[in-house]
Amino acid sequence: MDANAYRADGDRVLADLYELRRFGTYETGVHRPTFSDAHLQSLAWLRRKLKAAVLAPITDGMGNVFGRSEKAGRKLLCGSHLESQNHAGWLDGPLGVVYALEAARVLNSQPAPFAVEVACWCDEEGHFGSMLGSRSFVGDVAEVEIDAARDRTSGRMMRDALASAGLAGVTRARAEPGRYIGYLEAHIEQGDVLENAGLAVGVVSAIVGIWQYEITFTGQQNHAGTTSMASRRDAGLALAKFCVSIDQRFPSASGPRTVWTTGRNTLDPGAPSIIPGSATMLFQIRDTDPKTVVRLEHELQDLAAEATTSGPCTVAIRCLRVGKPAMMDAGMQAAIAAASETWTGGRHMTMPSGAGHDAQMLARVMPAGMLFVPSIGGISHHWTENTADDDITHGADVFVSACARLLSDASSR
Amino acid sequence: MDANAYRADGDRVLADLYELRRFGTYETGVHRPTFSDAHLQSLAWLRRKLKAAVLAPITDGMGNVFGRSEKAGRKLLCGSHLESQNHAGWLDGPLGVVYALEAARVLNSQPAPFAVEVACWCDEEGHFGSMLGSRSFVGDVAEVEIDAARDRTSGRMMRDALASAGLAGVTRARAEPGRYIGYLEAHIEQGDVLENAGLAVGVVSAIVGIWQYEITFTGQQNHAGTTSMASRRDAGLALAKFCVSIDQRFPSASGPRTVWTTGRNTLDPGAPSIIPGSATMLFQIRDTDPKTVVRLEHELQDLAAEATTSGPCTVAIRCLRVGKPAMMDAGMQAAIAAASETWTGGRHMTMPSGAGHDAQMLARVMPAGMLFVPSIGGISHHWTENTADDDITHGADVFVSACARLLSDASSR
Repeated sequence: MDANAYRADGDRVLADLYELRRFGTYETGVHRPTFSDAHLQSLAWLRRKLKAAVLAPITDGMGNVFGRSEKAGRKLLCGSHLESQNHAGWLDGPLGVVYALEAARVLNSQPAPFAVEVACWCDEEGHFGSMLGSRSFVGDVAEVEIDAARDRTSGRMMRDALASAGLAGVTRARAEPGRYIGYLEAHIEQGDVLENAGLAVGVVSAIVGIWQYEITFTGQQNHAGTTSMASRRDAGLALAKFCVSIDQRFPSASGPRTVWTTGRNTLDPGAPSIIPGSATMLFQIRDTDPKTVVRLEHELQDLAAEATTSGPCTVAIRCLRVGKPAMMDAGMQAAIAAASETWTGGRHMTMPSGAGHDAQMLARVMPAGMLFVPSIGGISHHWTENTADDDITHGADVFVSACARLLSDASSR
Repeated sequence: MDANAYRADGDRVLADLYELRRFGTYETGVHRPTFSDAHLQSLAWLRRKLKAAVLAPITDGMGNVFGRSEKAGRKLLCGSHLESQNHAGWLDGPLGVVYALEAARVLNSQPAPFAVEVACWCDEEGHFGSMLGSRSFVGDVAEVEIDAARDRTSGRMMRDALASAGLAGVTRARAEPGRYIGYLEAHIEQGDVLENAGLAVGVVSAIVGIWQYEITFTGQQNHAGTTSMASRRDAGLALAKFCVSIDQRFPSASGPRTVWTTGRNTLDPGAPSIIPGSATMLFQIRDTDPKTVVRLEHELQDLAAEATTSGPCTVAIRCLRVGKPAMMDAGMQAAIAAASETWTGGRHMTMPSGAGHDAQMLARVMPAGMLFVPSIGGISHHWTENTADDDITHGADVFVSACARLLSDASSR
């Protein structure tokens, strides 16, 4: 049993990805929100492909699709997701699903211990919630959360979407203890680190935690024509000053890979002739090291206190979400690196994932690993997202080889 | 004929204002958008009051209500508006309508030349457009503008609102050349200048022009987790920096009463985990002196060029609206000041209006004047807007007396 003997059929991988791009085509990407027709069509496509790969296709009550193997012994679970962000890229999700399918096709025809199962997690992109599919699989989604969930764009209730998809009352799958040696997921990097370094593969060390804050500025709403500049308490201006302060103060307190983002802000009431009486910004910090985030939180509180003291507006910070970084399994990392030595000549690097992935949920219940392929120009969550064909096929080789190595190593222990 | 003999019945003025507050009561203010049931009820109330004051009530095809006098000779036109901003104050508009009604009640029973006519302009607050009622009266609203107009909150078409009010096909009134000696309007100041100076009356010298700009920042939309801080082109941060630059650079280039406001801004796409690829701010400058605004526009263009040059985002400025300041008639100003000498002991000052008013439209076709009463705390466009009862009744005395003086002076020329 030589784990190095196994690699992907690159043409077959590319053909599958091209086929998937036809469901919800938008420019050169796709628009395939969770439970849209295009998404349901892509799931039906996957079930056909799983069957052809001698895997039993099972759709659970959360919209997750699994390809179950009847082979004896412990399995390696592999997967990602098929729905997309709105008007986004063609590879964000599908790449990992097709790699998993390919690993099953290449390895499951081999004798034990080679058994790969496929998982297609529903709603990783968060149209209805936060990683509902994989989170449900690890037992962390209550029925009441599903009752309340609605599509963030259309407002459609998740219960209605499930019923339309014929999934009302269907059991939700849960990870069976002992069934899996671990979970491996491939994904586009969504950043430009690999491209800038001229490398082919990223070995993910950890998935960053996401901390989220609502920062509110309170001033005095007033008429934009009759209120002198000196007497204004403009909450919008206070927000702008705060953003600039963060930009000035955070770099010296952050880690080398920390990122922070103001993705949304709102001036109330938001009319051209009214001085905003209040303003709100949604602020996010991501890091793999909670100690760094604690330091930045202190910085944030200091900035708020300084702004409130100097006036004329008050600043309040509310933490909406506390991130838990997910560490990737060392054995998984070693298997990916070894496979990359064979198939890319060692053109890989170890790196954290700045984005969240289903692997962070799976890491709660089993060893988990992630492999990245380069993103052209680092672009992601936009229809221009892309990866070179060579990088897609090299990544597939490394993925299949790493799967073989992990199953082989597990059986020899 | 002694113009000083005439004053208002303060209790009657207050009683009328209290009655009007019952239409669309919201907290201590009113919510009375244009063509809402509450607004239509307030117009019906006014028609009853006009009739009682021996004025013929006429509603035109724009929703303006006029009280026409059959007396011989030239008239003084007085008025304001009865609709309110959403959830706003009880006096913004109604004060001027009730003062006009009171002037007609006090003076029209006197022999010529005392003839006051009342005008209640529709939609001064701009629910469907910009001062549609008074602008229509001066001949500056085309039918196509009405066809396209919709309520900015509900989206209701103006044509539908007019039809519901029974005004479809009704003729729009136009100012009859030679009928009026001028137009006088009273209004709350909506600022805190009079209150801070301890004065009772503002004699308006000019209504500021409003210049409006859309400033667009273009960066690169990207993933908030995977894009390093160094490689970001965050359009939201560029917007914040621009706001702060304006705050730093404008004061030295502005006039003593110039005001500028960013009332709205939008980050695109506005999601917590996406770096904004573009951002837009709605920016406004108000002044009575166009030369000052030209200077500030240069400053704005310089800031945009500097920001674009230093990067990483580009900044583009588009002028949406060029303001025309409206000068108030010198004779009107003198009449208000003289009346204030009599009824407040001279507790008045000359000041510009930072807010727009129907008087700026009327000033295009006849001499126009405005009188301000103090606003408590300078608050306006909010339901806490208020004016002390004494200030309301003193203002009414000055208004009626100024009307008498103007009519008397006109007849003696």
